[in-house]
Amino acid sequence: MDNTPSVETRYIDLPAPVQLDCGRELHPVRVAYETYGNLAPARDNVILVCHALSGDAHAAGLSASPSAAGTRDGFAAEDRDGAAGKALGWWDGMIGPGKAFDTDKYFVVCTNLLGGCRGTTGPSSIDPATGRPYGSDFPVVTVADMVRTERAVLRELGIERLAAVAGGSLGGMQALQWAVSYPDEVDAIVVIASTHALHPQGVAWNAIARESIMGDPAWQGGHYHGTGRAPEAGMGVARMVGHITYLSGPALEDRFARRLQFADDVRYTITEPEFQVESYLRHQANSFVRRFDANTYLYLSRALTYFDLARQHGGSLTKALSAVQAKTLLIAFSSDWLYPPAASRDIEAALAELGKAVEFHLIEAPYGHDCFLLEEARQTPIIRRFLGEEGDSE
Amino acid sequence: MDNTPSVETRYIDLPAPVQLDCGRELHPVRVAYETYGNLAPARDNVILVCHALSGDAHAAGLSASPSAAGTRDGFAAEDRDGAAGKALGWWDGMIGPGKAFDTDKYFVVCTNLLGGCRGTTGPSSIDPATGRPYGSDFPVVTVADMVRTERAVLRELGIERLAAVAGGSLGGMQALQWAVSYPDEVDAIVVIASTHALHPQGVAWNAIARESIMGDPAWQGGHYHGTGRAPEAGMGVARMVGHITYLSGPALEDRFARRLQFADDVRYTITEPEFQVESYLRHQANSFVRRFDANTYLYLSRALTYFDLARQHGGSLTKALSAVQAKTLLIAFSSDWLYPPAASRDIEAALAELGKAVEFHLIEAPYGHDCFLLEEARQTPIIRRFLGEEGDSE
Repeated sequence: MDNTPSVETRYIDLPAPVQLDCGRELHPVRVAYETYGNLAPARDNVILVCHALSGDAHAAGLSASPSAAGTRDGFAAEDRDGAAGKALGWWDGMIGPGKAFDTDKYFVVCTNLLGGCRGTTGPSSIDPATGRPYGSDFPVVTVADMVRTERAVLRELGIERLAAVAGGSLGGMQALQWAVSYPDEVDAIVVIASTHALHPQGVAWNAIARESIMGDPAWQGGHYHGTGRAPEAGMGVARMVGHITYLSGPALEDRFARRLQFADDVRYTITEPEFQVESYLRHQANSFVRRFDANTYLYLSRALTYFDLARQHGGSLTKALSAVQAKTLLIAFSSDWLYPPAASRDIEAALAELGKAVEFHLIEAPYGHDCFLLEEARQTPIIRRFLGEEGDSE
Repeated sequence: MDNTPSVETRYIDLPAPVQLDCGRELHPVRVAYETYGNLAPARDNVILVCHALSGDAHAAGLSASPSAAGTRDGFAAEDRDGAAGKALGWWDGMIGPGKAFDTDKYFVVCTNLLGGCRGTTGPSSIDPATGRPYGSDFPVVTVADMVRTERAVLRELGIERLAAVAGGSLGGMQALQWAVSYPDEVDAIVVIASTHALHPQGVAWNAIARESIMGDPAWQGGHYHGTGRAPEAGMGVARMVGHITYLSGPALEDRFARRLQFADDVRYTITEPEFQVESYLRHQANSFVRRFDANTYLYLSRALTYFDLARQHGGSLTKALSAVQAKTLLIAFSSDWLYPPAASRDIEAALAELGKAVEFHLIEAPYGHDCFLLEEARQTPIIRRFLGEEGDSE
């Protein structure tokens, strides 16, 4: 841990409103971001890393602020606190000297997403029209809106071109959207455990999570800030649902089987956890509720279920990707049933049909969707080769 | 519909207390039941059919009471209401003249489970110690307790031996428990889409459903009866979770894909359903909440997660099954990820190792766990052959 650099989250106030897909504009917008490595004088070594539903700008290094602790998901959330309550970034294994996103060469930027709750303007920010937190008056944002905001931040940093955009899950959606929306500003995208459009079971899980939050009376129609109450019970259940969808059945079997938590036999209780997996879920829910805003969960969940590249382009994925100029790396995991490999294959097929540069890697690994956070060692050589760091591509 | 017989649910008050696994005894116990077909003079043609988590005693025919409507799960819940608001039983396609459980030959009995909310004593029944509904003071019941209660009902009906016990899901667990607990009283068991012990992902889904109900402030520690409030929001989410686990991803893809509910494009809303699958979930949750008691859901969910034949016998499934005398039919469905075929294979292997009569059929079908309610036509010849109705057993 001693060599892990300490990083500070910084903030940018965007000079202009962000124009949103829903037709509204948002102003003011503040964005939290971190950077790792050094910007080259030619400003041509920038990699934007995009976080997933429950992440934040703290992607690597040790945070100077302990409040960033525990932003990783599922099994990946464990054993990640650094010394003195400082927290390692959610993708620390991937960003740093000699790592997948090599800070000896690249200047890596990560922002907290629009709609977030970790420093970027979102539903818990003050609505200038009322002087109170937006709550559910915050406009519905899309992945394209997130990308628009990221681009505005980069412009403020003097960056007009990206060597790569990379992310897993919702982060991978942003990478795809970058290549579609701003084809001549992105050299490469790295799309991990992601999709061009979430399948209906994934839509359903997200709907259930949102129903759980909104059905909690403490949600109060989305205006719970300042009331001393928050929809913690509903958020806890939402998180549990998310958790199980991030992990594979076999991973749960390996980790917990049907082991009991407290005794050799059951204790005949309805209210208390009996199985280790039950205790685990309750613990994970409690720790998530303490660090994450329920409205942000609703907005980001809605954005990732809306995301549908083909629908943006008359129902054709091929048409959607026709403008892409970035070379594309797709990585999927065999046990990921929330973002299954088939979607990556669809993207690969569409790009190949268009004659675009694309490569797809399926990694056989047991941890489900969480693999993008856990299988860092196996992603690293693939990404380094793709970015031209070592040897030829493949 | 005109030929479908109308049936009445009847009730038996058990003469003696039911001794429960938890050490408590329950008295009085009333059990709701229905019967189909005619009891032979020798009382040797009885098939007990056991329902699953959300079922009831109304397994076949048209109920005289419209309140029984809609006790089937998932896709199976649709288009099942009979004329004049009467409801078809949840396994009507399987029970009747010439059907899998042939009422021309057999006398079929179905009871509402102990802990239920559709006529059998459960948490919404009056606790004689207080004069108020038990609520969460109801004792924790197990699958073995349910079977004990079913046996007591049969004794009241003058039945001491079963030609078969059959059921899907939690119903299949009861069939297994019958063969283990009362080996010399059961000639055959039909165990469909079930398991000897739910895997940890299934334990987790059930825990999430219970957390959702208990986290709803309207649950009030389980004593919501008479307060004018019930944990409907929490129950709705629990039901949604259940629903998605009962269906397969491909079935959802075929049925809903990513079709929007109201328009050609998204409407940028957090609170309203946008996708058809979202509307479907909300509708299913609302109709379930109207007909089912939340505490019963908690108790039956707990019972099915506790069920573990091996743990009852020192951790060995083979040891657990060593006393079985019934011949065993196991049916599983290829797309059932909640009760996957592997568990049926484990049971088959253990019985085969013991030299017991067992056959296992894997049905390739796309509807997930709900197949046991939907794939009636394909189960019928397998069950009829197994029961000796036609031809040789495979």
